[in-house]
Amino acid sequence: MPSRTPIEYRDASPQVRAIFDDIKRTRQVEDVNNFWKYLAHDPATLARTWVSIKEIMAPGALDPLTKEMIYLAVSVTNGCAYCIASHSAAARKAGMSEAVFGELMAVVGMANETNRLANGYRVPIDAAFE
Amino acid sequence: MPSRTPIEYRDASPQVRAIFDDIKRTRQVEDVNNFWKYLAHDPATLARTWVSIKEIMAPGALDPLTKEMIYLAVSVTNGCAYCIASHSAAARKAGMSEAVFGELMAVVGMANETNRLANGYRVPIDAAFE
Amino acid sequence: MPSRTPIEYRDASPQVRAIFDDIKRTRQVEDVNNFWKYLAHDPATLARTWVSIKEIMAPGALDPLTKEMIYLAVSVTNGCAYCIASHSAAARKAGMSEAVFGELMAVVGMANETNRLANGYRVPIDAAFE
Amino acid sequence: MPSRTPIEYRDASPQVRAIFDDIKRTRQVEDVNNFWKYLAHDPATLARTWVSIKEIMAPGALDPLTKEMIYLAVSVTNGCAYCIASHSAAARKAGMSEAVFGELMAVVGMANETNRLANGYRVPIDAAFE
Amino acid sequence: MPSRTPIEYRDASPQVRAIFDDIKRTRQVEDVNNFWKYLAHDPATLARTWVSIKEIMAPGALDPLTKEMIYLAVSVTNGCAYCIASHSAAARKAGMSEAVFGELMAVVGMANETNRLANGYRVPIDAAFE
Amino acid sequence: MPSRTPIEYRDASPQVRAIFDDIKRTRQVEDVNNFWKYLAHDPATLARTWVSIKEIMAPGALDPLTKEMIYLAVSVTNGCAYCIASHSAAARKAGMSEAVFGELMAVVGMANETNRLANGYRVPIDAAFE
Repeated sequence: MPSRTPIEYRDASPQVRAIFDDIKRTRQVEDVNNFWKYLAHDPATLARTWVSIKEIMAPGALDPLTKEMIYLAVSVTNGCAYCIASHSAAARKAGMSEAVFGELMAVVGMANETNRLANGYRVPIDAAFE
Repeated sequence: MPSRTPIEYRDASPQVRAIFDDIKRTRQVEDVNNFWKYLAHDPATLARTWVSIKEIMAPGALDPLTKEMIYLAVSVTNGCAYCIASHSAAARKAGMSEAVFGELMAVVGMANETNRLANGYRVPIDAAFE
Repeated sequence: MPSRTPIEYRDASPQVRAIFDDIKRTRQVEDVNNFWKYLAHDPATLARTWVSIKEIMAPGALDPLTKEMIYLAVSVTNGCAYCIASHSAAARKAGMSEAVFGELMAVVGMANETNRLANGYRVPIDAAFE
Repeated sequence: MPSRTPIEYRDASPQVRAIFDDIKRTRQVEDVNNFWKYLAHDPATLARTWVSIKEIMAPGALDPLTKEMIYLAVSVTNGCAYCIASHSAAARKAGMSEAVFGELMAVVGMANETNRLANGYRVPIDAAFE
Repeated sequence: MPSRTPIEYRDASPQVRAIFDDIKRTRQVEDVNNFWKYLAHDPATLARTWVSIKEIMAPGALDPLTKEMIYLAVSVTNGCAYCIASHSAAARKAGMSEAVFGELMAVVGMANETNRLANGYRVPIDAAFE
Repeated sequence: MPSRTPIEYRDASPQVRAIFDDIKRTRQVEDVNNFWKYLAHDPATLARTWVSIKEIMAPGALDPLTKEMIYLAVSVTNGCAYCIASHSAAARKAGMSEAVFGELMAVVGMANETNRLANGYRVPIDAAFE
């Protein structure tokens, strides 16, 4: 099963190397994460995903830390172990303190609880929200 | 099916009225949302949920707008129609502009996509994240 | 789009009618729910689903009310509006009181909350549970 | 990343120790599970979660075993590995036999299947359920 | 709440009109779906999403019908009502017969069931799959 | 916790052995996967699940490879690690190339992204899809 091994820089095609280079330059890191080394099996998806993430995660109306926390909130809700690990690290690198992490988790947990209470009680949407 | 109707203030028990009063006072609103009127069928859950939300959503290490956006990110990921409607409204009230909403959705969408790419490619967690 | 209309008894094939008859007899109802009328577009799935549900929901080590509550807990977690509506009705018919419904929702909400706290904090499984 | 290590009793603050003591007393165990040792990084969440679980899981209209099975049904649906492990253990301790576990899983699996059949066939909610 | 209304072609900016034109030309349709009219509130997301979908859904190693069925399978699993409606229509347009739809739903339902049985029984991955 | 060990052929009851034999014969394999060895703790679920899968995954209006890819798409969306591993292997055995796997993941990722954009923007269903 060839997709089960990461593609390292030394073994990558020029097209993949160019993307790895851009990731390393943009993020100021010495090597790319496993996520990119596995996506490298499909250069089209690697390229499209990196271009999209680079555009979406750049500072804009929202700052980078807030974006990483939202990314983490979604990953925690979906239970994606890899994504929780990598975006916890990214959020900490962007400045997330332990106190902020604790409040983030508290909100994520509460939202998942009340989502189900709203479903179970079949609460109709208030006219004011339409 | 008695749980299918909201409990209005005028029909509520003193215990439920006290919670409705606290919600109205805390949020500076004239009436509580349907969510609380349906939970009122179970006063213990009504009380516990309100006390928890009040504590969690108060300003702390994270500001109220960021908390509402995280709440919305989770609700969008879970596809909870009521919660998306109510927390979109709450986030706008707390200051979410259209530009911020657009970036929030972009991050939520991208996180849901890459969560599945990480799952499907079975990407192992980098040693640096452990 | 032919699958968008229910197949009523009078329009059903003999094969579908036989299953509808068995559902009505087993559940002591005068007509089958929309779920079965839509599945009737695919008689193989209709037959397999009914045979499986009939076997699974019969009294066994668990009583029918407990089974309906578990069904409802899953449907609420998944946010399936049709399933929440139909299995709320089925659970009430099987004897679920308002107090029981309230506790059921409280447990479902709490489980969804703590599932995310366990994910987010990346809690390793205790040796005692392995 | 400080949140990645459990906080043991000997290293805990008096506030955290008081909660650990209450968990051990209530559950009659010698030590608390990893879940609580990780939540201890955020004493407010630790306290709120324990108080809520203690209240929700106490005997009421539903017995403790039924509550544990509902908790497990949600955790299995969400795919939360830690929660499946810990609540399988809790349910067995509360009296869940192998036969009951088998029927529980059968209902959970079937509910997840029919939730998707109802979604995919876009089944409208029967008038009787509204 | 400005995001709650669709942006029609006549009211769109030149940038949005150019994307609407490309969608109409590529799909040979007279007007774009609501999805695009709502995304038009955030031109960057509109552009990125359309470019990605156009690339991903083009014929490649997989034919367009198979891609639409996979899209539908995911949407049904997530319970996204809009996406189920639009991709059911797209799959039918691409040639999905009623028999194919029925088998697709049967596989989706069964996969959701066995996903939970594998979770609940905590089945370890076979050595042959690693 | 007895359910945590697989039941091997040599230790299985005649009823379980008969199903194991049918799985081995149908799939032309020397031993059954862990999934079946764990389900064997509940012979009724083992039998029902095998009969259903055998019927659903047989060639019909959809070929076996397409069915395996749909199964994998659902498993990736749900994040079921065991199911992703086993159905990746099954799809490769049925002929899935690396290029096909790459396109499959691209569609699954995109569907999960746009499902959330449709949710978050609260896009109403187009009249043409009703």
